[in-house]
Amino acid sequence: MNIDLTINTDLTRKILTGFLNSEITRVGFGRAVIGLSGGIDSAISCALAAEALGPQNVLAVRMPYKSSSPDSLEDAEKTARCFGIQMITIDITPIVEPLIQREPETSDLRKGNLMARARMIVLYDQSEAFKGLVVGTSNKTELLLGYTTIWGDMASALNPLGDLYKTQLRQLASAMKVPESVIEKPASADLWIGQTDEAELGFTYDEVDKLLFLLVDKRYSWQDCVDAGFSKAFVDNVGGRIRRSQFKRMMPPIAKLSARTVGYDFLYLRDWGT
Amino acid sequence: MNIDLTINTDLTRKILTGFLNSEITRVGFGRAVIGLSGGIDSAISCALAAEALGPQNVLAVRMPYKSSSPDSLEDAEKTARCFGIQMITIDITPIVEPLIQREPETSDLRKGNLMARARMIVLYDQSEAFKGLVVGTSNKTELLLGYTTIWGDMASALNPLGDLYKTQLRQLASAMKVPESVIEKPASADLWIGQTDEAELGFTYDEVDKLLFLLVDKRYSWQDCVDAGFSKAFVDNVGGRIRRSQFKRMMPPIAKLSARTVGYDFLYLRDWGT
Repeated sequence: MNIDLTINTDLTRKILTGFLNSEITRVGFGRAVIGLSGGIDSAISCALAAEALGPQNVLAVRMPYKSSSPDSLEDAEKTARCFGIQMITIDITPIVEPLIQREPETSDLRKGNLMARARMIVLYDQSEAFKGLVVGTSNKTELLLGYTTIWGDMASALNPLGDLYKTQLRQLASAMKVPESVIEKPASADLWIGQTDEAELGFTYDEVDKLLFLLVDKRYSWQDCVDAGFSKAFVDNVGGRIRRSQFKRMMPPIAKLSARTVGYDFLYLRDWGT
Repeated sequence: MNIDLTINTDLTRKILTGFLNSEITRVGFGRAVIGLSGGIDSAISCALAAEALGPQNVLAVRMPYKSSSPDSLEDAEKTARCFGIQMITIDITPIVEPLIQREPETSDLRKGNLMARARMIVLYDQSEAFKGLVVGTSNKTELLLGYTTIWGDMASALNPLGDLYKTQLRQLASAMKVPESVIEKPASADLWIGQTDEAELGFTYDEVDKLLFLLVDKRYSWQDCVDAGFSKAFVDNVGGRIRRSQFKRMMPPIAKLSARTVGYDFLYLRDWGT
C-alpha cells in the first residue's frame, strides 16, 4: 500500500522556528542549549534554534563518552560550524564511570541509560550557566516506540521535533542543509562502535514510520494494519512497544487524595491566578 | 482564620498502600526502590512501600554527598531498621565532582540541582538492578512551590506523597511510627550544614500549607487570601512561585504538527490498542 509521509518542509520549518521563538521568549529567555550528538535530530534542533533566536544565542554541547565514535565528534563540529553556533565539549566519562566501576557487570542497557542521564545533567547545568532553555531532540518515532531514556534524552524544556517521524526529519534535514555526512550516516545511539538503531530495533525507520502513521495518526486497529499488508508479528511488536512505553510519555502518577491534585485537577498554565 | 489540615491517617495509609500495591503489580513488578535521605518524606515512602509490598521487596538507597550531615545517614539507617527494609549506600560525590571542578564557581543552586539529578541516576540504575520501581517522595507543598529539581527528586515511577502537604505528612509520619528523631528535626535539603527549608523559603510549612490549601484546593483568588488574613506580599510570593514552576509539573511541550501528537491527542494508557 502507498503511505506517503512527505511533509511540506517550508511550512514545517516556519511553524517550528515560530514555536521555538514564542515558547522561549514568552518565559523571559532568548537563548537555547542543545546536546549535539553528530546525528540528524540534534542537527535539526540546532538549525531551527539558530534560525529562531539567532546563531549567537544557541549553545551546542558535545558530550562524548570514551567509547563514542570520533566521527560523531567531527559531524557535530561540522554541524555547529554550518549553522554558526557556539560549541563546547564536556566528556561524560568521569560522571558515569564511578557507577560502572562499582558494578563492572553493568549491562549495556544500564550503561546506555547512565550516559543519556549524565548528558541531561550536563545540559541542564549548562542551561543555568548560559541562561538558555534546553531544546529537545526526541522524534515521534522514538517517543512512540519508547526507544529513549526517561529523564535522559527525553528531558527538555521544549521539543520542536516530537511530532515528526524520523523519515520526515530526514526531509527537513535536507531542506535545512544539514551537512551531507550527518544525513547519510545510519542513525545510532553511538554506545558502541558499529551500533545502529535499525539493527538494534530489528526494522527500518521507513517501515516502522508507515506503520506508526496508520496506528497512531490514522487510528487503524492492529488488525486493520495487518489487513493493510503489515505482518502480524511486526504489528504486535510495534503495538506492544507503544503500550509498554506509555509511562515514559507522562509525569509520574500521584496518588489522588484531595479535591485538587497536581497533574489531574491542577493543570493550570501561565495564566493561573490573579 | 481557622484552616484545618488534619487528615484521617488510617484512611490515608490504606489508600496509599493500595495505590502502591496496585500500580506496581499491574505493570508486572513487585518491588520498590526509594532514595532515603533521613528526612520525613522518604521515610514515609519507605514505610508505605514496606507495608504495601513486604519489607523484603523494598530497597532503600542512601546517597550522601561529601557535605551531607552524618545525622542524615544515621536517621536513614534508623528508618530502614525501623521498617525492616534493605539499605545500600552509594556516594554521589564522585559523580558530581567532575562537573563542579570544571567550573569551581558553580553556584549553590547549580550544585543542588547536580546532586538531585545524580541521585535520580543512581536510583534509576538501582531500579534496573533490583527490578523495582522508583517510588517518589515529593510532597504537595514542594510540588506546588516548585521547591524541587525537575528530572531530579521529582523523577519517579509513581508518587504516593504528591497530594499531601508537608504538615499532613508529619501527621502520617507519627501515625506510621517513623523514628522520633526523623520527625523532630527541621526539614532540610542537606546541601550544606545548617541549611533548613524554612529558612531558605522565608516562611514556615505551617503558614504556607494553609495558604496553598486556600489557593489551590479551595480555589480562592489571591485577593480572597488577602481578605482572609494573609499578607499581600506573602500571597504574591507564593502565587508567583506556583505560576513560575508550572513547567516542572508537566512533560516538555511538543510542537504540534500532525493530527495526533504525543502528550496532546495521544494520551492512551495501558488499554490502548487491541
